[in-house]
Amino acid sequence: MIERLAVLGVGLIGGSVALALKRAGRVGRVVGYGRGRANLEAALAVGAIDAIADSPEAAVAGADRVLLAMPVGAMAATFARIAPHLAAHALVTDAGSTKQDVIAAARAGLGPASARFVPAHPIAGAERSGAAAARADLYGGRSVILTPLAENRPADVEAVADLWRACGAQVVEMAATEHDGVFAAVSHLPHLAAFALVDELASRPQAQTYFRHAGSGFRDFTRIAASSPEMWRDIALANRAALVAELDAYLSRLSAYRDALAAGDADTLMQSFTRASQARSRWQPNGSNLENDP
Amino acid sequence: MIERLAVLGVGLIGGSVALALKRAGRVGRVVGYGRGRANLEAALAVGAIDAIADSPEAAVAGADRVLLAMPVGAMAATFARIAPHLAAHALVTDAGSTKQDVIAAARAGLGPASARFVPAHPIAGAERSGAAAARADLYGGRSVILTPLAENRPADVEAVADLWRACGAQVVEMAATEHDGVFAAVSHLPHLAAFALVDELASRPQAQTYFRHAGSGFRDFTRIAASSPEMWRDIALANRAALVAELDAYLSRLSAYRDALAAGDADTLMQSFTRASQARSRWQPNGSNLENDP
Repeated sequence: MIERLAVLGVGLIGGSVALALKRAGRVGRVVGYGRGRANLEAALAVGAIDAIADSPEAAVAGADRVLLAMPVGAMAATFARIAPHLAAHALVTDAGSTKQDVIAAARAGLGPASARFVPAHPIAGAERSGAAAARADLYGGRSVILTPLAENRPADVEAVADLWRACGAQVVEMAATEHDGVFAAVSHLPHLAAFALVDELASRPQAQTYFRHAGSGFRDFTRIAASSPEMWRDIALANRAALVAELDAYLSRLSAYRDALAAGDADTLMQSFTRASQARSRWQPNGSNLENDP
Repeated sequence: MIERLAVLGVGLIGGSVALALKRAGRVGRVVGYGRGRANLEAALAVGAIDAIADSPEAAVAGADRVLLAMPVGAMAATFARIAPHLAAHALVTDAGSTKQDVIAAARAGLGPASARFVPAHPIAGAERSGAAAARADLYGGRSVILTPLAENRPADVEAVADLWRACGAQVVEMAATEHDGVFAAVSHLPHLAAFALVDELASRPQAQTYFRHAGSGFRDFTRIAASSPEMWRDIALANRAALVAELDAYLSRLSAYRDALAAGDADTLMQSFTRASQARSRWQPNGSNLENDP
C-alpha cells in the first residue's frame, strides 16, 4: 500500500496513474503539483488527486512514491528541487519518453538519491490530454518499459514495477541505451518524417491543392504530424544522438531511392519495396503498444 | 447508353466500373480481357463481364467505350495493339495513377486516335484486389480526375466524364502535369517514405526488437508500406521526374531537421513542428479521397 503518492505534472499520464492506483485500492492520499491551476482543479474534480501542493517540494514531503509525469525537458529542474525534500524511504519513477537524458538529469539533480529513482516509459497515450482526460484504465494491457539503474536495489525496482503493474500494465525491462535507440527508430523518426512532409507542403503557395487531393495514405502517414510541437521538440532534443543516427540512416535510404529512380533502376526499387511490403504485411502490432503517442 | 464496353485489365478497378455501369443500366455488353484466366472467370461469376476475350484486339472490336485498367507499365503495349482495331466512334479512357506517361504512351500507340482517348485517374481503391473484390459502389462519392488532351473534342470529354459519373463518381479536371505533381507529393512520396523506413528496420539484425516495440504511430505511418511492390515500382518510374523533385525537397527538409538537431537548434524544430501540427490539425480529409491506394 502506498500511503502518499506525489504526482508532479498531473496530465493524462500522471492523472491516469493516480486514478488506476485508487481504483486498485493501492494508494491512500495523492498530492498533485503542476503549472496550471485549472488543470489541477480538474484533477481534483475527477478524483485523481486529493490535494493540490503549491510546490514540488511540498508535494513530495512525506510521500513514499513520487511520479514525475511532466515533459522531459522540465525534469532536470524538478529533480534538483525535490532532492532535499524526499523522504528517506521514498521511491521515484517517471513517465518520460526518453530515458538516457532523464537518467542523467536524475543523477545530477538527486545525487545519491538517484539510487531510489527507477526510470519508466509507459507506452500509452490518447488523443486527448490534460487531467480531465485521465482514465483509470489507460494502462490496462499496455507496456511500461523500465530501464533500471546500476545503483537501484532490486527490491526498489520490484516495488516500482509493482506500482505500474497495479495500474494494469505489463512491465518490460530494457537498458536505457537500447530503449532510446529503439524508440528513435520506431517512434521519434516517424514523427519527424511526418512533420517534415506536412510542413513542406503547407509552406508552398499551392498548399490547398495538395491538401484537397490528399487521401487515406496521406491521412495515415501524417496523422502523427498533428502531435504537440513542444512535446516532440523536447523528445527530439532529449534523444538527439540516437535520433540523428536514425535520420542519417533514413536519409541514406531515401537518397538511394532517389538515385535509383533518377537512373531508372527498377530492380533496386522493386527489391526494397518487396522487402518492406513483406515485413509490413507480416507484422502484427503488439496490442499493448497500440496507443504510443508518444 | 454504352452498347459494348471493353475492359482491359479486369481487377478491382475495372471490374467495379463494369458493375457500376450495369447497376446504373448504362451498359449493354461488357467484354473483358486480362492476363489471368481464373481472375477473368471470377469477373464472369460476379457478373462484371459478360464474355472473356482472347486478346485486347478482340475485346475492343465493336466496342464504343474502352477502359484500360491495367498497371500503367503495361499500357503502352496495349495502346499499340488496340489502335488498328478501335471502332471509329470508340472512346477510350484509363484508370492509371499517373497521367503524363500514359498520355505519351497513348499518343505513341494510338496515333491520331489519341484524340479519342480521355485520361482518367479514379481516386479509389480498397484493401483487396482482383475481380472478385469488385463492387458496384466502389466509386460512389469518390473523385475521378480527368486530364483531357488538347486534341480531345469537348463532346468526347463530356461523354467520358458521363461514364465516370454514371459509376457514382465526382469528376474533376486538371492538367496532367499538375496531376502528376500533386500526386507525387501527397501519394507517391509518402509510399516511398514508408517503404524506406520499413526496409531500413527490417534489414537490421535486431529487426524483431524494433517491430516488437512499434506502436500506433508506426502502424499508421507505415500502413502503405504493405502495398503492392510491383504497382509502386511502376508508378514511381512512370512519375519519375515529379517524384525525384519531391524526394529532393523532402531530403532537404529532413537534412535541415538533422542539422538543427545536431546543433541543438530548438527554435528551428519548434517552428517547423508548429506549422506542420497546425496544418495537419486544420486539414479535413476530403471524404471522396479517403480510399486512394493508389
